[in-house]
Amino acid sequence: MQISHSQLANMEQRFRATLINSIPGYKCLQMVGTSNRDGISNIGLFNSIFHLGANPALLGMVFRPLTPEHDTFNNIMETGHYTFNNVLPWFYKQAHQTSASYPSEESEFSICGFNKQYLSEFKAPFVQESNIKIGLEFRECIDVSINNTKILIGEVVHILLDEHILGDDGYIDHTKAETVTVVGLDSYFTTQQLERLPFAKANGKLNKQITQHKV
Amino acid sequence: MQISHSQLANMEQRFRATLINSIPGYKCLQMVGTSNRDGISNIGLFNSIFHLGANPALLGMVFRPLTPEHDTFNNIMETGHYTFNNVLPWFYKQAHQTSASYPSEESEFSICGFNKQYLSEFKAPFVQESNIKIGLEFRECIDVSINNTKILIGEVVHILLDEHILGDDGYIDHTKAETVTVVGLDSYFTTQQLERLPFAKANGKLNKQITQHKV
Repeated sequence: MQISHSQLANMEQRFRATLINSIPGYKCLQMVGTSNRDGISNIGLFNSIFHLGANPALLGMVFRPLTPEHDTFNNIMETGHYTFNNVLPWFYKQAHQTSASYPSEESEFSICGFNKQYLSEFKAPFVQESNIKIGLEFRECIDVSINNTKILIGEVVHILLDEHILGDDGYIDHTKAETVTVVGLDSYFTTQQLERLPFAKANGKLNKQITQHKV
Repeated sequence: MQISHSQLANMEQRFRATLINSIPGYKCLQMVGTSNRDGISNIGLFNSIFHLGANPALLGMVFRPLTPEHDTFNNIMETGHYTFNNVLPWFYKQAHQTSASYPSEESEFSICGFNKQYLSEFKAPFVQESNIKIGLEFRECIDVSINNTKILIGEVVHILLDEHILGDDGYIDHTKAETVTVVGLDSYFTTQQLERLPFAKANGKLNKQITQHKV
């Protein structure tokens, strides 16, 4: 079937939001840990995180048009620090619950059952229950005028992880970690590895025959 | 284990690139179809695609510091059109091969065994073998000065998909589609759904007890 631009424009709003959020496929899911200057902690659930560069190590994330009380954004602006924490199969329900709209003075850590973990001189809390944790320092905020979103860029300044998850060549084994992925805003998945492939070379051999079958 | 900012800065370059590319987890994987003004088609493999908004329907993608011969970028600038095409388990090897560096005058479609599919008045080819295809029109290019990358924003103007993949509420069922996801640049995965959860409400009931176990 084919959906045209004008059909998209005329869609019922929630239908279109669900469609556009889910159509690109699996996304990078992170619980974002922050704290305001009074030490009130927060967890926000994000699926709009993307790789921007490895040297320096930069990750981007998208904020929808902001309401004044957006705790995650405000906390990052106040302290300059935030954390990414992966979601695991035994707490994806609690992670999802952090996406509910709680008052700023309440912490999703205690409401949803997570424990805070701090590093000295780093102002944002990590989620103790995660097994891959990234500490970031704010670098840049880009205003996207086309739809009033913001793209926030941070540099990786800390990594905390279980040692067996890190491979000899730097590869993080999310199968061992059991990292959960997401489609849209609400559909959670575990994964099974097909294969890790070698760097593709133009003179490499390839079977061009594509046949639909289960692998 | 803990990796500090200075350890990151002093890492062997490929080790750090592999680490930073793989640490955020599963990513949105798309074959990006384009054509130059002479009709020479191209497929580029991208994993830096993110949701920017549903109304208008906008998706972003990252281009690393550009070499002059970056076909995907040049083609989008020439024609204004590009396509996202999902990767399926029976052709992830061929999809991976499109990431090899071929001369501009050669098309990854024929080299890697994919067929082109065109819509009238839309200049970029879709990958016939994919079962979820998105046609985009270029909207904006943001220069990220911090590391000379570019963020390219496009609006969804066409969607092509098998009808059984689209749910009653607009949800795209990537389990039915068998969409493949990726970690880093080379590690491919299929998925298993845990659950699709209802919208989280602040007054919702939650079992806060997190116990590590297989689900």
